[in-house]
Amino acid sequence: MDYVYGPGKNHLFVPGPVNIPEPVIRAMNRNNEDYRSPAIPALTKTLVEDVKKIFKTTSGTPFLIPTTGTGAWESALTNTLSPGDRIVSFLIGQFSLLWIDQQQRLNFRVDVIESEWGRGADLDALASKLEADRSHAIKAVCIVHNETATGVTNDLAAVRQLLDKYRHPALLLVDGVSSICALDFRMDEWGVDVALTGSQKALSMPTGMGIVCASPKAMEAAKTAKSVRVFFDWNDYLKFYKLGTYWPYTPSIQLLYGLRTALDLLFEEGLDNVIARHSRLGKATRLAVEAWGLKNCTQREEWFSDTVTAVVVPSYINSADVVKRAWTRYNLSLGLGLNKVAGKVFRIGHLGNLNELQLLGCLSGVEMVLRDVGYPVKLGSGVAAAAAYLRNSTPMITSRI
Amino acid sequence: MDYVYGPGKNHLFVPGPVNIPEPVIRAMNRNNEDYRSPAIPALTKTLVEDVKKIFKTTSGTPFLIPTTGTGAWESALTNTLSPGDRIVSFLIGQFSLLWIDQQQRLNFRVDVIESEWGRGADLDALASKLEADRSHAIKAVCIVHNETATGVTNDLAAVRQLLDKYRHPALLLVDGVSSICALDFRMDEWGVDVALTGSQKALSMPTGMGIVCASPKAMEAAKTAKSVRVFFDWNDYLKFYKLGTYWPYTPSIQLLYGLRTALDLLFEEGLDNVIARHSRLGKATRLAVEAWGLKNCTQREEWFSDTVTAVVVPSYINSADVVKRAWTRYNLSLGLGLNKVAGKVFRIGHLGNLNELQLLGCLSGVEMVLRDVGYPVKLGSGVAAAAAYLRNSTPMITSRI
Amino acid sequence: MDYVYGPGKNHLFVPGPVNIPEPVIRAMNRNNEDYRSPAIPALTKTLVEDVKKIFKTTSGTPFLIPTTGTGAWESALTNTLSPGDRIVSFLIGQFSLLWIDQQQRLNFRVDVIESEWGRGADLDALASKLEADRSHAIKAVCIVHNETATGVTNDLAAVRQLLDKYRHPALLLVDGVSSICALDFRMDEWGVDVALTGSQKALSMPTGMGIVCASPKAMEAAKTAKSVRVFFDWNDYLKFYKLGTYWPYTPSIQLLYGLRTALDLLFEEGLDNVIARHSRLGKATRLAVEAWGLKNCTQREEWFSDTVTAVVVPSYINSADVVKRAWTRYNLSLGLGLNKVAGKVFRIGHLGNLNELQLLGCLSGVEMVLRDVGYPVKLGSGVAAAAAYLRNSTPMITSRI
Amino acid sequence: MDYVYGPGKNHLFVPGPVNIPEPVIRAMNRNNEDYRSPAIPALTKTLVEDVKKIFKTTSGTPFLIPTTGTGAWESALTNTLSPGDRIVSFLIGQFSLLWIDQQQRLNFRVDVIESEWGRGADLDALASKLEADRSHAIKAVCIVHNETATGVTNDLAAVRQLLDKYRHPALLLVDGVSSICALDFRMDEWGVDVALTGSQKALSMPTGMGIVCASPKAMEAAKTAKSVRVFFDWNDYLKFYKLGTYWPYTPSIQLLYGLRTALDLLFEEGLDNVIARHSRLGKATRLAVEAWGLKNCTQREEWFSDTVTAVVVPSYINSADVVKRAWTRYNLSLGLGLNKVAGKVFRIGHLGNLNELQLLGCLSGVEMVLRDVGYPVKLGSGVAAAAAYLRNSTPMITSRI
Repeated sequence: MDYVYGPGKNHLFVPGPVNIPEPVIRAMNRNNEDYRSPAIPALTKTLVEDVKKIFKTTSGTPFLIPTTGTGAWESALTNTLSPGDRIVSFLIGQFSLLWIDQQQRLNFRVDVIESEWGRGADLDALASKLEADRSHAIKAVCIVHNETATGVTNDLAAVRQLLDKYRHPALLLVDGVSSICALDFRMDEWGVDVALTGSQKALSMPTGMGIVCASPKAMEAAKTAKSVRVFFDWNDYLKFYKLGTYWPYTPSIQLLYGLRTALDLLFEEGLDNVIARHSRLGKATRLAVEAWGLKNCTQREEWFSDTVTAVVVPSYINSADVVKRAWTRYNLSLGLGLNKVAGKVFRIGHLGNLNELQLLGCLSGVEMVLRDVGYPVKLGSGVAAAAAYLRNSTPMITSRI
Repeated sequence: MDYVYGPGKNHLFVPGPVNIPEPVIRAMNRNNEDYRSPAIPALTKTLVEDVKKIFKTTSGTPFLIPTTGTGAWESALTNTLSPGDRIVSFLIGQFSLLWIDQQQRLNFRVDVIESEWGRGADLDALASKLEADRSHAIKAVCIVHNETATGVTNDLAAVRQLLDKYRHPALLLVDGVSSICALDFRMDEWGVDVALTGSQKALSMPTGMGIVCASPKAMEAAKTAKSVRVFFDWNDYLKFYKLGTYWPYTPSIQLLYGLRTALDLLFEEGLDNVIARHSRLGKATRLAVEAWGLKNCTQREEWFSDTVTAVVVPSYINSADVVKRAWTRYNLSLGLGLNKVAGKVFRIGHLGNLNELQLLGCLSGVEMVLRDVGYPVKLGSGVAAAAAYLRNSTPMITSRI
Repeated sequence: MDYVYGPGKNHLFVPGPVNIPEPVIRAMNRNNEDYRSPAIPALTKTLVEDVKKIFKTTSGTPFLIPTTGTGAWESALTNTLSPGDRIVSFLIGQFSLLWIDQQQRLNFRVDVIESEWGRGADLDALASKLEADRSHAIKAVCIVHNETATGVTNDLAAVRQLLDKYRHPALLLVDGVSSICALDFRMDEWGVDVALTGSQKALSMPTGMGIVCASPKAMEAAKTAKSVRVFFDWNDYLKFYKLGTYWPYTPSIQLLYGLRTALDLLFEEGLDNVIARHSRLGKATRLAVEAWGLKNCTQREEWFSDTVTAVVVPSYINSADVVKRAWTRYNLSLGLGLNKVAGKVFRIGHLGNLNELQLLGCLSGVEMVLRDVGYPVKLGSGVAAAAAYLRNSTPMITSRI
Repeated sequence: MDYVYGPGKNHLFVPGPVNIPEPVIRAMNRNNEDYRSPAIPALTKTLVEDVKKIFKTTSGTPFLIPTTGTGAWESALTNTLSPGDRIVSFLIGQFSLLWIDQQQRLNFRVDVIESEWGRGADLDALASKLEADRSHAIKAVCIVHNETATGVTNDLAAVRQLLDKYRHPALLLVDGVSSICALDFRMDEWGVDVALTGSQKALSMPTGMGIVCASPKAMEAAKTAKSVRVFFDWNDYLKFYKLGTYWPYTPSIQLLYGLRTALDLLFEEGLDNVIARHSRLGKATRLAVEAWGLKNCTQREEWFSDTVTAVVVPSYINSADVVKRAWTRYNLSLGLGLNKVAGKVFRIGHLGNLNELQLLGCLSGVEMVLRDVGYPVKLGSGVAAAAAYLRNSTPMITSRI
C-alpha cells in the first residue's frame, strides 16, 4: 500500500500538506457517525467558536467547508462580490496568480498589481489606485498573506492603513492559507473581511477542510452579492447554524474530531508560542541558506516568510534535481520551484507541527543533496548557523519543565 | 473526545455516512505526503482507472473531487450546461428537491416533474415532455437514481429507453449517491452522461470525496458549457491528467489510500456480489417491516430501494421519537424523516460494508424502540422474517470455504 | 493483510479476546516512547493506583506484567508459595484444569477437588479439607472465579466464609480472568490474597498484559516464598516502584495508554453499571437458550455466568460445526467446546465492551446457524425472549439523556 | 492523553523501544480476533516460517512468546538447562549483568567472566575455561551479542571457533536483543543454540513479543532440561505446532499482524541492506562523537556497536543532565548511562527503522545539548563529519530509482 517505501520516516518539508501530529492522527482514527445526532452539532459548536481564535477575531463568522484552499478562495469571492465587480489583486507568485485566474474566471474585473517574483505586494501601486478611486468602484482588495511559491509575506497591517487612509470601503479579502496558525494574523485588528486557510497547512491536518472566516461587513456584503454559488453559499450554512444542526451537507466526521484535537494542541502550546516557533524555524532556515552561500528568493527582509523559504540555486543547477535527489536518496520531501521560478528555486516548508531537530535534520539533508548535485556547500555549515541561533532561542517545553 | 460515549459499538444505520471497514480505517491512518512526489500520481493513476469499474464504464472520465455529494452535483451541472439551459428534473423526495434547488440557483430553467413522495419518477410525464420537445430545447434530464429520503429507486434503463425512443439528445445526469457500489448501475449500457457519488455512501469511506464520471458526450458538452466554474472545473483536472500529475490542487492523501483499499475490498468481494448483498439486506429489511405490520414509504415494489428503507409509523407516533430513542437507549443510529415526511417515517440505511448479523441486530433494536414508543410490535417478528429469508439466500464467505 | 476477509464487521463472541472499543484502539495507535522518561512513570502511577478499583481493593498491590493470563497464574503462584507446598484447587473445566496442570508442574502438592463439568466448585469438599487440616498444611486455596469453558461462576464469598469458619490461614488465590471488570468482584471484602486478570478479557484490550493484585498477606508471603522466579518476581517490580520508575523491564507503551483509556471508559460508565450490563446480557443470553429449547452447560442457576454461556447441542449435532458455520457463513465468532465438552457445547462470550444490539445480532446469527446444522429452532424465538427482557432492563445511556 | 506533549515529533534515540514505522502501526490498528479461527493459525504459520530468516537459520525452531527480552532470556535458559548446571557467562555491562543475575537466581552455577565496562567478552578467559573443562561440566556459554549499556558487540564467530577448537559440547546461548535484524547474525553458521530478541528492538514494533529460536541441539536438550517452567515451556508450544493451531495461550492479535508487516518491510529492504544501513548509521555516529572530541565508551574498534553508541562525557558533566536537557528542550530521547557508567555516558540508539536524516537531526540536537550543559562543542562539527561519510555511502532508495 506504500507505493515507494523507504526506510525510516519521510522528512516532509513541502509547504503543505504538512506533518500531522500523532494526537490528530489518533483522533481521526475512527468510524463514521450520524452527523444528525446531537453529538456532532455539540462538537461543531465548540469548533466554530474556538476556530475564531486562530483568526484572532471575536466578531467573525467561521465556515468549515469540505473543500480545499481553492474552494475556500471561491467561497470568499462568490459570497461577497458580484460579477463585473472591480477588484484589486496582487500578483507576486504562483498562488496569487492562481487566485487571480480564479477571480477572472468568476467574472470580476481584476486590477492586477504585479511585482517581480520574490518581492511583496506593491503597496504604492495600491495607494495610487485607492487614491484615484473616488467613486469607490473597487469593491475588494485581494491579497495573499504569504505567497507559498516565493516565500514572501505581505504586510497586511499596511494594507489596512492604506484603506483607512483613503477611507476606502473596499472589502479586504485575505488568503491566509500558508500563514494562519503560523504567522502573526489579526483579523479584527487589521480589519480583514474574509480570511481563509486550509486544514493541511499550519493546522497540521489532512487536506479537506477549507476554513473561511467572514467579518460582519463581509456578512453584510453576502446579502447582496450576486455571484452564483450553491455549494459555497454561506447562507446555506447560516440556515443550519440557526437550527443548531450546523451542516447543510455531510461533513467529514474524522476532520471534525481532527480539528478539535488540532485546536487543543495549538491552545496547549499557546498560539503566540506557535507563532514564535515558526519565527524561530524560519530565521534558522534563512541563516542556513546564508551559510550555504545561496540566495533567498525573497528579496527583502521585510518580506521574509516564516513558513516557507524559497532557495535560489546557482544557474548551473536545476532545482528540480535537488527535489528529486532529496526524495530518491534521503527520503526528504522538498517543494519544487513553480512556474516562473521552476528549475531556479527549491522550497523548504517549515510550517505546522514541527520542531527544531526535525528542521536541522532537513537542513543536513539539503546540504548533502546540494553536494550531490554539484554545489560545493560545506557540510554542516548551514546546520551550524541554524543551530547557533536555535540554541539561544528555543524555550524549554513547558509541560516538561 | 467522544461527546456522548455509550458502551459497545454504535449501530450505524443512517443512509450515510456509513460504517467504514477496518482495512479502510487502517489505510487512512497515516501522515500526509507530498502530493507532487511520484508516489501520489502513481497511486492516483490506479484509482482513476479502477474507479471506472464501479460505474461500469470503460469510456467515462472520472474526477475525484475534494467535496461532498452537493459539490459533485454542482460539478455535474456546471461542466455540462449553460445558464438558461432548459432541463428536466424529477422531484420525488428531499434529495431530488435539494438538487433541483441547486439547479435553479445555478440559473437553469428547470422543468420539475413532481411525484408524490414515496413514488418514483413519473416517466410518462418525461415521455410527454420529450415527445413535445421537437426542437431539443431540453438540454439535460436530471434524475436521482435512489432517493435517500423515501427509499425509492428509479428505473434508469427506462429513462434511457425514452430518450432513445424519442431520439432525444439531452444529456442524462444521474445522482448515484446512494446507489453506486450498492445497486445495479451501468453507466455505459444505460447511456448515462454524468454519474456521481460520494465517498461516505456505498464506498464506505469518510466524507470528503465526490466522485464524478463523465461520458464522452458530457466531455464534449463541457467544452462549450458556459456555467461559471473554477473549483469544480473539469478542465483544470484534465490539464493535470495530461501532465500525469493529476491534481490541480491538494488532494487528501488519506482519502486516496482509503479509496484504494475500498476498491480493493469491493473487487475482492466482487461488485456483483456486493450488489447481491445489498439486494439481500434490502429484501430482508422489507420483510421485517411487513412482519411488524408497518408500511414502507415506497409505494410500489418496482421502486423498492436496496440501500435504504423508509418506514412509515402509525399516525399516533412521531418518527423522530423512534430515532431519538434508538440513539439514547440502544446506541442505534437511524435516519430521520425529512421535510414532507418528517415525523412520519424513520429510515433504516442498509448500504455499504454491512452484513446480515449487523442488520438483524439493528432490526431487533428497531423492534424494541417501536415498543418503547408505544407501537405493539411482536418482539422477534421482524427478525424472524428477515432471518428466514437471509438463511436461504446468504452465501458462504468465499475466502473462508 | 486480512487472511480471510468477509464483508461487514466480524461479530466477535468468543470469551476472549473480546471487542476493543474504538477509544482504546485510538489510544494505542502510537509510536513507541522512552519508558525511562518522566512521562511513562507519571502515566504508570495513575494506572497502578486506578487499577485497584477494578479489584475493589484499597490495600492491594497491583502488578501490570507483560504476559498473558497463563503468566499471571504463574506470577500468583510462584511469588506466594514454595515447592512442595500443599494447595487445594478446584477442577471444574478446561481452564481450572490448565491452572492445576501448572500448579503441579511448579511442584506444589495439589489436592484437586473435582466437579462434573458444568457444576461449580465443590465447597463441601473444601470444608472437609479445611476442617481436617488442623496443622494448616494447606498453604493456599486456588479457585477460578469464572470457568470460561463451562460458563460457571464460583461463589468466592462462600469460600472466604469457609476459610474464616475454620480460621484457616491459607492464602486465597483467584483466577479472575473472565470475571474481573464484568462480574461482581470484591478483593478486600472477600479476603482474596491474589487476584488476576488479562487485558484481553473484560478490560477489552489486546492481549499482552497480565494484571495481578496482591493483598498485604500475599506480599508478606512473597518474602519467604521459595519458588524460583525471575521474570515473574514481584520484588523486581517493587524495587522500581520504590524508585518511582516502575518498570524492571520494557513495558508496552501502547498497552499502557490503552489501559488508561480502558479504565477511563469503565469509570465513565461506572463499574457497577458495567457489572449490571454484563448481568443483563448474560440473563438475556440464557433466556434465548431456553427459548431455543437447548440446555445450558451450567447445571444450576447459582453458577450461571454473566460473561460466557456454554450451550449444549443435541447429541446428533457436533458443536464444532456450529462454530465453523457461524464463521464461514455469518462472520460470527463463537467459542468451541473444549476437552470433555468438545463437540458437545459451543460458547457465547458476552463480556467486555458490548451492548444489547450486538448481542441480539449474535443471537439471531446463532439461530440461523442452528437451523443450518439441522436443529429445528424457531427463528426469532431466542431474540424475542432476550429482547423482551432487555427492553425492560436496559437503562438510557447516561451521556445521552 | 499525552502527559508531556511537545510540538513536533519526538526524536526517539534510546536503544529501545525504537521508532515503529507507519505501516506497522497501521497493521496493528485493529480489533481483536478469535485466535482459534483458521485465520490466525494461517497467519502464524507464515510468521514462524519467515522469522527464521532474521536469525539466518533453516534448522531452528522459533517461538513467539508474549513476553519481553527478560522473559525470552528465561525461556532460553529454563528450556535447555537444569538447576545446578555450570554455565559460563560474560559480564561486560548492565544487560549482561542482569542476565547473569537471572542465571544465578534460576540456580545455575555461573562462571562469570568479567570485563571492564566498555570492553568485549574476554575470549581468552573462555578459552582457558573450555580447555580446562575436560569433563564437559560446562553446559552452556551465555553471551550477549550486543551489550546495549556500553555499545559493545561481541564476536560470536570467535566464540564458536573456540567451542569447536576444544570440541566442547556446551550449548551457545545468545542474547541478540539489540543485534538481531540490525547486526550481522548467523545462527546456523555460528552454531548458536538459542538466539533471542524482543519485538521493540530492531524489529521496530511495540514491546510484547519475545522471539526465541532454538537449534536442533537445543531442542534435544529441552527434552531433559529439569528447570521448572510452565509459561515459558517450549513443549506447550510444540504441542500446538503439531496441532496446527500454534498457540498454547492467547497471543496478541495486533502483534501478529505487526510482525507480519515488520518482516515484510525487512524483506522488502533486504536483510543485508538493513544490516548495511545500521553499519552506516553506526559509523556516522562514531564519526560525530570523534568530531566532538568525546570518547566512545567502547574501547576498541573491534567491539564498536552499530546499534548503540555510548558517549563518555567529560568528568565535569553529569550525563544524566544531557539526557534530561535533550528531552525537556529538544524533544530528543537519549539513553541514560546505567549502573557503573551512570552519569558518565549517555547513549544514542541507532537501531530499527531509521534513516540518515533522522540520525543527523539527532546529532545536531546532541550538539546543542552538549553546549547547553557546558561542553564547548563546535556546533555542526559532528553533523558535518557524519554527513561527509553518509553522503558517500547512502544508496538510492530502491523503490524510487
